[in-house]
Amino acid sequence: MTQDESAIRAVIDSWMEATQAGDVPKVLSLMTDDAVFLVAGKAPMDKVAFEAASRAQATAKMKIEAQAEVKEIQVDGNLAYAWTHLAVTVKQSGQDKPIHRSGPTLTVFKKTGGRWLLYRDANLISESKLA
Amino acid sequence: MTQDESAIRAVIDSWMEATQAGDVPKVLSLMTDDAVFLVAGKAPMDKVAFEAASRAQATAKMKIEAQAEVKEIQVDGNLAYAWTHLAVTVKQSGQDKPIHRSGPTLTVFKKTGGRWLLYRDANLISESKLA
Repeated sequence: MTQDESAIRAVIDSWMEATQAGDVPKVLSLMTDDAVFLVAGKAPMDKVAFEAASRAQATAKMKIEAQAEVKEIQVDGNLAYAWTHLAVTVKQSGQDKPIHRSGPTLTVFKKTGGRWLLYRDANLISESKLA
Repeated sequence: MTQDESAIRAVIDSWMEATQAGDVPKVLSLMTDDAVFLVAGKAPMDKVAFEAASRAQATAKMKIEAQAEVKEIQVDGNLAYAWTHLAVTVKQSGQDKPIHRSGPTLTVFKKTGGRWLLYRDANLISESKLA
């Protein structure tokens, strides 16, 4: 594994940990200021919209468990992409039944000032049939 | 616009034309042999599965109209990505009402033997409310 690939894996791990901990500033520190998030059925989200959605989740006391299985990372110069399989469980306080979602993500990372940061993200997770 | 960016735009244009014409061999020539297609709610598709799905569409005499609006292309070395907004209309023979789908795609292209080819594709198009 190259140094760049290890660094990108570390960003993905930090992202998962910070998401589970509800640490919004930490998650924000792992993306570029001009990051874009693409999801189905909605307009693309910028960093400001991502932050608002993350803070709303934290306020709603959503408990998020997320596991990322990295399928592939490829790097060329200051550009890289990762294909990841994501499994997410969301439990809202006051609700018994957690929601399970899973699916792939395709993420572009950019090396900025020596650091790999999330830059473009296509999130294809959908409701899964898990109990 | 750089030469690489123009070449990638030309691949996207050819892809759209060949898809509308039902020219499956042409579409297949625009991707690497190890291309992967990520969609929501399904297992990742390889080139063989993509070909089977495309041939099924051609056999079903589906008329596909597709427009791609390139939002962004960035290149580093032999790796590039494109963010595109896709609008697709599918009309099946014998059915009056066409189906409209739209949404973003995030696509990784790879320069292989001097040619840019589609390599990884995350397709986030969903049913749209268009008349």
